[in-house]
Amino acid sequence: MGYEVMELGDVELQSGAILPGTFLAYKTYGTLRADKSNAILYPTAFGDTHVQNEWLLGEGKALDPQHYFIIVPNLLGNGLSSSPSNTPAPWDRGNFPQVTIMDNVRLQHRLVTQRFGISKLALVTGWSFGAMQTFQWAASYPDMVERIAPFAGTAKTWPHTFVFFEGVKAPLEADAGWRSGHDRQTVEKALRAVGRVYAGWGFSQAFYREEGYQQLGYDSLDAFLSGFWDRNFAGSDPYNLLSMLWTGQHADISANPTYKGDFEQALRSIKARTVVMPATTDLYFTPEDSAYETLRMRNAALRPIRSIWGHFAGRGLNPDDSRFIDDELKRLLASSV
Amino acid sequence: MGYEVMELGDVELQSGAILPGTFLAYKTYGTLRADKSNAILYPTAFGDTHVQNEWLLGEGKALDPQHYFIIVPNLLGNGLSSSPSNTPAPWDRGNFPQVTIMDNVRLQHRLVTQRFGISKLALVTGWSFGAMQTFQWAASYPDMVERIAPFAGTAKTWPHTFVFFEGVKAPLEADAGWRSGHDRQTVEKALRAVGRVYAGWGFSQAFYREEGYQQLGYDSLDAFLSGFWDRNFAGSDPYNLLSMLWTGQHADISANPTYKGDFEQALRSIKARTVVMPATTDLYFTPEDSAYETLRMRNAALRPIRSIWGHFAGRGLNPDDSRFIDDELKRLLASSV
Repeated sequence: MGYEVMELGDVELQSGAILPGTFLAYKTYGTLRADKSNAILYPTAFGDTHVQNEWLLGEGKALDPQHYFIIVPNLLGNGLSSSPSNTPAPWDRGNFPQVTIMDNVRLQHRLVTQRFGISKLALVTGWSFGAMQTFQWAASYPDMVERIAPFAGTAKTWPHTFVFFEGVKAPLEADAGWRSGHDRQTVEKALRAVGRVYAGWGFSQAFYREEGYQQLGYDSLDAFLSGFWDRNFAGSDPYNLLSMLWTGQHADISANPTYKGDFEQALRSIKARTVVMPATTDLYFTPEDSAYETLRMRNAALRPIRSIWGHFAGRGLNPDDSRFIDDELKRLLASSV
Repeated sequence: MGYEVMELGDVELQSGAILPGTFLAYKTYGTLRADKSNAILYPTAFGDTHVQNEWLLGEGKALDPQHYFIIVPNLLGNGLSSSPSNTPAPWDRGNFPQVTIMDNVRLQHRLVTQRFGISKLALVTGWSFGAMQTFQWAASYPDMVERIAPFAGTAKTWPHTFVFFEGVKAPLEADAGWRSGHDRQTVEKALRAVGRVYAGWGFSQAFYREEGYQQLGYDSLDAFLSGFWDRNFAGSDPYNLLSMLWTGQHADISANPTYKGDFEQALRSIKARTVVMPATTDLYFTPEDSAYETLRMRNAALRPIRSIWGHFAGRGLNPDDSRFIDDELKRLLASSV
């Protein structure tokens, strides 16, 4: 679980707020070549850290540390990078400023260029929020990103996805109890509720119908709900979750001075060779939204993950979906740009 | 809003518990013919009363009170029929016994037969929980029900639907604050959270993408969330909601001594001429589950409501879907049995 930290000082965010003493936690895998041509960036998803990204790395895989130098930066708000839980007053907890996907990407850009002197990324890839950061990278730094492979994530937060996040926030917004911050039991109760709300969204109707959780070692629906979902957010800081949910609700690659809200233009401006991988049964980052976006990009192919695992098809939980993603990444990395 | 009440005395429920002083609230529309051949039963959905069913009734419609005698019984737990909110101690509030869809139907059977002396129902129809009661009627009283038209509801609660309901329950389970029962503000906050969780489920991804809420008079997503969803459960009794959610989570037409859990046999035993109308974009009573059930019935046609309105395609909120349902009901009522 060892990782590095880059201190970034006082950072002006998109909102205009200053986040003092900002830092990015990250981990690298493999060795950067002298010509710096083998760098891959692989940002993390909501509630995850670099550890949850590691399933996609390994010998013989597309993201093989023997060949590539893979940087996994932790999302702001996840508890390792600057977050409500680790920022001193007066910017701690509920006072932590709102950060955007773009804010994340700008700080990651400093990490990549200033710490490592990298000017080209062979690939940016990521799942869910990681996919949103991937799109933002390609739109904000089109000449720096050679390839992107966003999976189960979109270039902006579509309206229904926004509404889905409202539901995830709801138990935390309703329950004032945990805000006292002293009663860990109340906090954990609220976090279990977040897991229960998430349960129906994370996997598809067919996954539950066909008892896909058996593959994860749960022998009943009840065991899956209590063993997987009740624990999924256990130990989290509710303020961290709310911070990341705000980030997720306001993603849009064109919400910046470069594109001034012109989403179609931002999509067209992406130069990277692109493979977009929605999961066919994803209930909130839908294949329809990914198809819309892919059609408006210049160099992009839509390669749906045909799976009943819904959004979690991209989480490395079952061999079929993991192999599909790995195969696509191999093909993409082998392609010239 | 006038309605009638039938006192049913002390009732033994499926669970074995006795609910003392049970009563059913109901409303009738039209006149029962002397030969009692024109009776239609139209049960209510989760959180609704007979009032929310009235959109489907009217002159020139399939359910025309000039031709039919339409009985709308209120679901147990909805606040008008026996509920946590209106049952005296010691069975009030959180102590109200668990009631099943079958319990509802057995009491409705007493209403229909004892109060009105009806021995044949020309039609049983209903939306959502109303559809689940419709299926139960046809399975439990196959010789009494000539036709059924369940829309946006299934014959049992499929696993994902169960999980969806877990999410709806979550803000109420997490927030102990409202259980004190004295602070209405805390209660309303929890109820708003229920609405926010429900928002992403009630309508489809495409409905939000295409701003279907404009048709309801809301000019922005935010206006729809606060104007429609934040108010949807306002004023409800949380114990009533939890009671009905338990009912919804445990529906199964075969969970009784007649069918002993043999779901396929229960479906096969339905004699009524049947039209099943799932909404194509319903996220929790899915068209796939309805197709599975319809295929196993002897006399049933699947007629999907092609709509982006998701589950709420069956709530009478837009003219296209309402006309589709009405047309199907007209065809069904005109058919011989």
